[in-house]
Amino acid sequence: MSQFDTDTQVTQTADNIWRGTLSREWNIGNNPNGGYLLSCVLSALKRSLPHPDPMTLTTHYLRPGTADEPFEVHVEVLRTGRTLSTARASLIQGGKARLEVLAGFADLQISAGIDTVLTIPAPAIPPPEVCIQRHGETQGVELPIANRLDVRLHPDFAVAGSTNVAKVAGWIRFLDGREPDTGSLPLFTDTFPPSTFSLLGVVGWVPTIELTVHVRCRPAPGWIQAEFSTEDLQQGRMIESGRLWDSTGQLVAQSRQIGLVMQQS
Amino acid sequence: MSQFDTDTQVTQTADNIWRGTLSREWNIGNNPNGGYLLSCVLSALKRSLPHPDPMTLTTHYLRPGTADEPFEVHVEVLRTGRTLSTARASLIQGGKARLEVLAGFADLQISAGIDTVLTIPAPAIPPPEVCIQRHGETQGVELPIANRLDVRLHPDFAVAGSTNVAKVAGWIRFLDGREPDTGSLPLFTDTFPPSTFSLLGVVGWVPTIELTVHVRCRPAPGWIQAEFSTEDLQQGRMIESGRLWDSTGQLVAQSRQIGLVMQQS
Repeated sequence: MSQFDTDTQVTQTADNIWRGTLSREWNIGNNPNGGYLLSCVLSALKRSLPHPDPMTLTTHYLRPGTADEPFEVHVEVLRTGRTLSTARASLIQGGKARLEVLAGFADLQISAGIDTVLTIPAPAIPPPEVCIQRHGETQGVELPIANRLDVRLHPDFAVAGSTNVAKVAGWIRFLDGREPDTGSLPLFTDTFPPSTFSLLGVVGWVPTIELTVHVRCRPAPGWIQAEFSTEDLQQGRMIESGRLWDSTGQLVAQSRQIGLVMQQS
Repeated sequence: MSQFDTDTQVTQTADNIWRGTLSREWNIGNNPNGGYLLSCVLSALKRSLPHPDPMTLTTHYLRPGTADEPFEVHVEVLRTGRTLSTARASLIQGGKARLEVLAGFADLQISAGIDTVLTIPAPAIPPPEVCIQRHGETQGVELPIANRLDVRLHPDFAVAGSTNVAKVAGWIRFLDGREPDTGSLPLFTDTFPPSTFSLLGVVGWVPTIELTVHVRCRPAPGWIQAEFSTEDLQQGRMIESGRLWDSTGQLVAQSRQIGLVMQQS
């Protein structure tokens, strides 16, 4: 089994309760990455619902997770229809909710309406070999997650404070060769450096308050291309939008989050 | 009291339970508008939380609401912090959940981080007097909501199937003169015709599955300018993004929804 599947594994302990342990291998500094926490919830949701693909997924990050500690996911199925099932879930550690999640699952291989297709083509960027592999020193924190995920940054956006737009782009894949699927795309929307980095440099902490991911279709094997940008930052609150494409150039996910851009202390 | 405040009024009947009645004055055809249903939930959330402004708000539309019938909103406060409070809520009629909502409230007049400002300017569009007032005949359904909200459509996007992009733009305000606030902006993100109209014409039903609204700041009095577009439609599932500006040109809200674009039956 892949590292990702092992580290997000859950066991059912009651009707709507799933249990697992947070691995420290997905940490950024001392905290488990938010996308990894979300993946643990997804792992429980997937086994609770009849549809295979997380089509729409919103998480509120209430408190940081604690690595090397057990967690529970409490699932409540809200509605199960023919083409869509909806559930909420909480990730709990030490009696305290860390994440609250609201999700709609579907079968993305089945059409839900008209045939017309509109899409956003993948922008031309340098291939992964020419991009810059993300490592801890770039950001001034320990980055265990860099041993799980191979993140390559577009050179134009990899230098602190070097651009006049808030943007980050590049490539991502699992380091152990596990192929992407609809269950791993949400992780990939929350594992790049903040898009404010290229414009503002290393500011302080950039905590995500809420993240919404729309998975659009099942990805082909290979690298995932990604782009994240922030056009709207007011009162220290940023709206960051993300897009993921698979190795065939197909748009496979869109994301949007509201996060805080704090002063460096 | 304004029509909007009267029609979204709730009375507390137990610790976390609020009760009201859905008005049929916000119907589109036979169903209450989704933004109006969401506003009834917001009305209960606002009175349950210590912070005044809905900063991030996600709703899943589980089932249509029923006009002229009573409803309950069940609120669960998930976390109350100094600068942010988070809650979930369900709107229930006849024992069945119609909406599930997850929301983070803050005080948008208080900064949460750095001073840098990025924003998206309002596009130049014809003034409200030159735009086309929305009425029922345009869409082939009865539109009681057109007596509550004054929606003016940019002439370039008001004719079915007349453009090569899926876009709608225009102006919105309450017909009774109530001024906009952070509690009414979510309604305004879900009361324009679907952005697919200008490209595809009247297709069938365009139900929203999930809507996320980020309110960015308190709006000035006057008209709200709006723009909605869909660049991503696959397998009948569309991602529509929206932006609202106030009468001073300030970006006051962003929205994103996943909806279905069904065949006309």
